[in-house]
Amino acid sequence: MGCLVLLLLLAFLMPGLAIPVPPALKALSNLHLSTSFTSRPSVVTKYSIHYFEQKIDHFGFKNEKTFNQRYLIADQHWRKEGGSVLFYTGNEGDIIWFCNNTGFMWDVAEELKAMLVFAEHRYYGQSLPFGADSFRDSRHLNFLTSEQALADFAVLIKHLKRTIPGAENQPFIALGGSYGGMLAAWFRMKYPHLVVGALAASAPIWQFEDIVPCGVFMKIVTTDFKRSGPNCSENIRSSWDAINRLTRNGTGLDWLSEALHLCTPLKNAQDVQHLKDWISETWVACQYLKNSNLSDRELLQNIFQALNVYYNYSGQARCLNMSETSTSNLGSLGWSYQACTEMVMPFCTNGIDDMFEPHLWDLKTFSDDCFKQWGVKPRPSWITSMYGGKNISSHTNIIFSNGDLDPWSGGGVTKNITNTLVAIIIPEGAHHLDLRANNAFDPMTVLLARSLEVKYMKQWIRDFYACLRKKH
Amino acid sequence: MGCLVLLLLLAFLMPGLAIPVPPALKALSNLHLSTSFTSRPSVVTKYSIHYFEQKIDHFGFKNEKTFNQRYLIADQHWRKEGGSVLFYTGNEGDIIWFCNNTGFMWDVAEELKAMLVFAEHRYYGQSLPFGADSFRDSRHLNFLTSEQALADFAVLIKHLKRTIPGAENQPFIALGGSYGGMLAAWFRMKYPHLVVGALAASAPIWQFEDIVPCGVFMKIVTTDFKRSGPNCSENIRSSWDAINRLTRNGTGLDWLSEALHLCTPLKNAQDVQHLKDWISETWVACQYLKNSNLSDRELLQNIFQALNVYYNYSGQARCLNMSETSTSNLGSLGWSYQACTEMVMPFCTNGIDDMFEPHLWDLKTFSDDCFKQWGVKPRPSWITSMYGGKNISSHTNIIFSNGDLDPWSGGGVTKNITNTLVAIIIPEGAHHLDLRANNAFDPMTVLLARSLEVKYMKQWIRDFYACLRKKH
Repeated sequence: MGCLVLLLLLAFLMPGLAIPVPPALKALSNLHLSTSFTSRPSVVTKYSIHYFEQKIDHFGFKNEKTFNQRYLIADQHWRKEGGSVLFYTGNEGDIIWFCNNTGFMWDVAEELKAMLVFAEHRYYGQSLPFGADSFRDSRHLNFLTSEQALADFAVLIKHLKRTIPGAENQPFIALGGSYGGMLAAWFRMKYPHLVVGALAASAPIWQFEDIVPCGVFMKIVTTDFKRSGPNCSENIRSSWDAINRLTRNGTGLDWLSEALHLCTPLKNAQDVQHLKDWISETWVACQYLKNSNLSDRELLQNIFQALNVYYNYSGQARCLNMSETSTSNLGSLGWSYQACTEMVMPFCTNGIDDMFEPHLWDLKTFSDDCFKQWGVKPRPSWITSMYGGKNISSHTNIIFSNGDLDPWSGGGVTKNITNTLVAIIIPEGAHHLDLRANNAFDPMTVLLARSLEVKYMKQWIRDFYACLRKKH
Repeated sequence: MGCLVLLLLLAFLMPGLAIPVPPALKALSNLHLSTSFTSRPSVVTKYSIHYFEQKIDHFGFKNEKTFNQRYLIADQHWRKEGGSVLFYTGNEGDIIWFCNNTGFMWDVAEELKAMLVFAEHRYYGQSLPFGADSFRDSRHLNFLTSEQALADFAVLIKHLKRTIPGAENQPFIALGGSYGGMLAAWFRMKYPHLVVGALAASAPIWQFEDIVPCGVFMKIVTTDFKRSGPNCSENIRSSWDAINRLTRNGTGLDWLSEALHLCTPLKNAQDVQHLKDWISETWVACQYLKNSNLSDRELLQNIFQALNVYYNYSGQARCLNMSETSTSNLGSLGWSYQACTEMVMPFCTNGIDDMFEPHLWDLKTFSDDCFKQWGVKPRPSWITSMYGGKNISSHTNIIFSNGDLDPWSGGGVTKNITNTLVAIIIPEGAHHLDLRANNAFDPMTVLLARSLEVKYMKQWIRDFYACLRKKH
């Protein structure tokens, strides 16, 4: 069963972070998983929907325009006496989706007497600074940055403290997964006066510049394939040359187009590159190959089986459409802009440590592509300047959790930095599994991780109240 | 002698911070002292001048324009082995002026084996993002914020670490006085990965919103006048009514215009208000009144003596010009914009705790005036949201020094917050006296303050190197 189950499992477990658009790995652009696999809340969520008027530009005073930031509140378990507020730092998508898929917060609300707040990230969901024009050009997109998003969270928290009776003197905790996990960690670093701590689940805060090797992501993907059964990764590694050999002539192109049931037949080398990119992107999330010693044609027929499971699980589609990708549902447009500005994450492959065709990380081409697409140029070292890179030991009260199966763990914090900047590893975990609702199939390691996370959060809450009592 | 000496002494000791433009206290706008009194370096300073290309907008990607930030380096005493870098976070003025007037850094360079860096604040001195157009309108001024200035410092420090052999693995310490002191403290709070600590001299980081009473500044000014000799503050308090009584008719207006040797005679109530504002502003920096039981006319003739000492010390001027103020030299224009945007510091007087006419703090009028002058509206609670207000105890390694004579100490941190966020009080100190060069006339308390500051800085440096050794 290995490969097929892993396909669905990974699909279920890896929503969240889009990865940027490396020129040589274009197919990886916007690595989200479609919500169709993942939007099944395992707890019944009841929340109220609110809107808060935010400045479009927190960092300049010429533009006084505002927009409505959406946020959700669930206070069934909140207690004004000794309670807390769990604040989800929304990432690249509709906040309702994150609300429904962050079962962990719902599961622990009662124990922590917690109000849950889910704040939508600007430029996603309904929180569009310029409505339908928000993505029109670089002028309208100019306010889509992590700094502006963090400032939204800060101003919103101040608003909540001021307007919800009882919230003023309660500890707020930031939580998030993936890019939202980075935001949670960065929020604690930059606004420690507003949250007593942060749970940053699967947050690859080191996937920038050369802090980690650019090949680490695809290497972990490959390792996952190796674990899932014999020959999976070997077959994929072989498939690139098989494709290259087969498509040297027209007959091969036709054969392959048919074998893969492509809606649009392959016509030239460019189409073939596009195909390989599309397949690469799919492998990042799934796998279906275990036979060895196959001929090129047998191998590629197997590849079709795998693709078909992924893109045509219901069996309804008559052909596979390469313009449909595994990640097209979440806020891809916004993330593509963010990847072209601040969120410059270098990716590369060498075909040795990983099962992909070798591709260097090429900033120049990447930058040119960004300029063509958005009229902006990436600033690859900015995030490190702003948020400190590996040099973050002076901060406190951040939990970094990572699953060993998650390729994003390669850019994450997987060792304790200090006794209040702690790493939690979930050996059987994929992308922020710990943020999901408790589930009968959960591996023991994720249950342990969640209980450890609760333990830390309780400690922060206790420290907060102890400090408060000392003041009075 | 009291009053006259105090006048010159205060003038010498209180450069640095401009205070904003409270509507009822317009005369206080841009409280700098003129450089003519203060620009006499007491150490011979030798530095090299450099320029670094900075993004005009660190927080948006549409604008890719750059400008040259000026900075000064003095490395006579720097040691690559075990040395340090003292980084002056420039404030509202020409960086050469701060370089020449921050003798403390020059005095301790050898002991700390330190390189000195003085970084100019954008929109001041030669670091003008749009050259001569920088102050033209709100569009050009849009990038004049503390956040952009801190980002300049961050990017500059990374550049220095990258390009100066030996600097990479050395501890940087931020230092600044007044607004520069706020920047030093905020820089350590926001970029602790770039500086191991900060000396924030006379930094009124709490002079925002209602963190401290709006009357505290003028109350301390009044206390200073009381200390300087009998009747000083009482006479000033009486002078407002004396002016009001005398100027009820034309004869009184003429008499007063002549008594004060005004270049432009007083014609109406508006002129009289302008006069009182102008005198108020002058008192904030100096005093010349000690007789009691004077008639209105005698009193006002004494007031003239005081003004004349301040504005016509050389005796060359034939009349006093109200458009010349005590604070017109430093970067007033830039500060006036900053006061109208982020740096909203409420000031008020009640005539009881202080010697001024009662004036409420009136945000509405203030805001309207700002909009008229600059086309922007102040955001009075932003600085607190951004930098934490009183809730800063999670940060580390900041020294807040304040002089008891300094009215800005009212908004400063004057008690230890934790054992690494410490307050140093200099009972006989005025505005960041501790940053000045050692001087034969220094009170003992400032010598103690300076040695304590050096002690803390040495500790930070030791901790940095201990940590570095542990890593290797």
